[in-house]
Amino acid sequence: MKNEKKAVASGSKKAGKSEAYKKAGVNIDLAVSLLSGLKKKISTTRRPECLAPIGGFGGMFRIDLKRWKKPVMVVSTDGVGTKLMVAQMMGKYESVGHDIVNHCVNDIAVQGAEPAYFVDYIGTGKLQAKMYQEVLTGLADACLEQNMTLIGGETAEMPGMYGDDFDLVGCITGIVEEDKIIDGAKNIKAGQVAIGLTSAGLHTNGFSLARKCLFEQGGLTVKSKPKALGGKTVGDVLLAPHRCYWKAIQACLAAGIHLNGISHITGGGFYDNVPRILPDNVSAVFDTTVIDVPPIFKLIQELGDVDPYEMYRVFNMGIGMVFFVPKKDVAATLKLCKGAGYEALVVGETVKGDRTVTCKL
Amino acid sequence: MKNEKKAVASGSKKAGKSEAYKKAGVNIDLAVSLLSGLKKKISTTRRPECLAPIGGFGGMFRIDLKRWKKPVMVVSTDGVGTKLMVAQMMGKYESVGHDIVNHCVNDIAVQGAEPAYFVDYIGTGKLQAKMYQEVLTGLADACLEQNMTLIGGETAEMPGMYGDDFDLVGCITGIVEEDKIIDGAKNIKAGQVAIGLTSAGLHTNGFSLARKCLFEQGGLTVKSKPKALGGKTVGDVLLAPHRCYWKAIQACLAAGIHLNGISHITGGGFYDNVPRILPDNVSAVFDTTVIDVPPIFKLIQELGDVDPYEMYRVFNMGIGMVFFVPKKDVAATLKLCKGAGYEALVVGETVKGDRTVTCKL
Repeated sequence: MKNEKKAVASGSKKAGKSEAYKKAGVNIDLAVSLLSGLKKKISTTRRPECLAPIGGFGGMFRIDLKRWKKPVMVVSTDGVGTKLMVAQMMGKYESVGHDIVNHCVNDIAVQGAEPAYFVDYIGTGKLQAKMYQEVLTGLADACLEQNMTLIGGETAEMPGMYGDDFDLVGCITGIVEEDKIIDGAKNIKAGQVAIGLTSAGLHTNGFSLARKCLFEQGGLTVKSKPKALGGKTVGDVLLAPHRCYWKAIQACLAAGIHLNGISHITGGGFYDNVPRILPDNVSAVFDTTVIDVPPIFKLIQELGDVDPYEMYRVFNMGIGMVFFVPKKDVAATLKLCKGAGYEALVVGETVKGDRTVTCKL
Repeated sequence: MKNEKKAVASGSKKAGKSEAYKKAGVNIDLAVSLLSGLKKKISTTRRPECLAPIGGFGGMFRIDLKRWKKPVMVVSTDGVGTKLMVAQMMGKYESVGHDIVNHCVNDIAVQGAEPAYFVDYIGTGKLQAKMYQEVLTGLADACLEQNMTLIGGETAEMPGMYGDDFDLVGCITGIVEEDKIIDGAKNIKAGQVAIGLTSAGLHTNGFSLARKCLFEQGGLTVKSKPKALGGKTVGDVLLAPHRCYWKAIQACLAAGIHLNGISHITGGGFYDNVPRILPDNVSAVFDTTVIDVPPIFKLIQELGDVDPYEMYRVFNMGIGMVFFVPKKDVAATLKLCKGAGYEALVVGETVKGDRTVTCKL
């Protein structure tokens, strides 16, 4: 079921329904008709650089050479992981559309890249209309929020695979001027400050452990409202969309802040994500006691009896992104982040070292 | 398990093994160590435009403005579908790595785009070393064959999803000069000739129907050697890698052939894929009697008692790509394709019409 997002406008008039294929479990017509209903929504994400009319094979995006002098394409791909299983349990799918987009935007924004275009992939054993429509709606809305074109995609119905599950994958491309790439290994030195931007919860990482602790060990369900979550259901708290930090980065760059390095805190937490951008002779020290850890993490830790170190090794623990800035830029950075709608606080510093991360737990 | 392809070179020295996470079914260390062994292989695909050292978040690819005057990025994504289940049954995974790359290259090559970089995604319930290594080896080899960089990727281990299966998705980006985009809707007129390039078999489409006909209805297994396949096993014939047609397109473009339109014959066959590139007032007529249909298609048709029309609606039936050229270019095109290592033949023509496809069956 190839490129059906693009096949809507075409399709031979002589081609009837594929009955044998349908009996084999693949319903091309459903995908085409669902997509047709979403066309208007998707077209709202179209930027002027887009050339391809819906109907071709590949999406086309022109590089605007009036704007970009030495354009570098920054590319990343990711999935939503087993957060999808929580979406399934809840029967709510829009938020995972936001998750995949926002996660991918963050992954390239750390290098200073402006999001340009996005493609999605949905794999499933049997295509469900509600899931498909909600995921695509969330995806398109999230793309629009970041001024990014949803330029293509693929939905694959694979009978006999996936069972009742589905997978959702995104691939993002952004653009950055070559001399403006944010490169921590080059610019981070000892004596700089780590500013943390708060997360919306788990984002899209650590769900296998979270499900085990909350559901298996803790006996909760997505509908449970444990006291710790203040009236919210476990499912709703878990599904809170991945926060996108691009607008904070944009605001800081526009104001001339020296963003020496940026780390997206995903699976692996501070321990795995921060060393990626540190130079060999610098280490980072975080004071996690200043972080207002969201209640969902405490609940996971308690019900699963997870070691505190382990928690910081798997989850973001309330900080979804870290900026490394010179001391002189700290106050302005905090203000700019706040102005862009984010909560930010000083969470650590860089010291002479060997590219390791230490957390005061 | 984020971006572990890129995380190999980093990782905090203080970070120990994630025991709780491992118990929850996610083995980060295995993925990292497997990837480490594949680094050399992957690095062979590195083009000079690549900026990112292994270790960052997003892969970086510089647009060479000495070479490209008005660069347009052409983007496509696809999966391998249930061909993966045949790979599983055979325990052979290298060929599907070639499949995903070659399929994606064809999807952008039809617009005249030169492959530039590729990202892969592997989703699985439990990461298997053999599968991972073979898939990545096939992927990297196929990228190298097309002078394309394997610039990034993601492997997601999702316990409780996928069962024993896995999914494989690719996203490709190529580059084309804006004034050299191949646009059938603009350039195809009545009276042109359709040249078909032979396929290697099913490529990556129609596997759900094929599996039903061969295995369920026909009672065969992947190890069966039915007389029709001349001594080969069903599994080996089914796994024949998707043929990549870029080198034929390149040869024709370099020789100044008027490639007015190109269609990649994937799921939907001639009926669905050709109309995508036809102008509103042109139809295409194919004489399928000239096609030497590979025995595997005949076997599927026979065992599943599939209507001939249906066969051409689902499968490529032996023709994986169609070029539309002016009559005067036919002989040269056939010769160039042959010179580039492809079998090509005249399979049809364009007539005045209404964007429909008719096949003389």
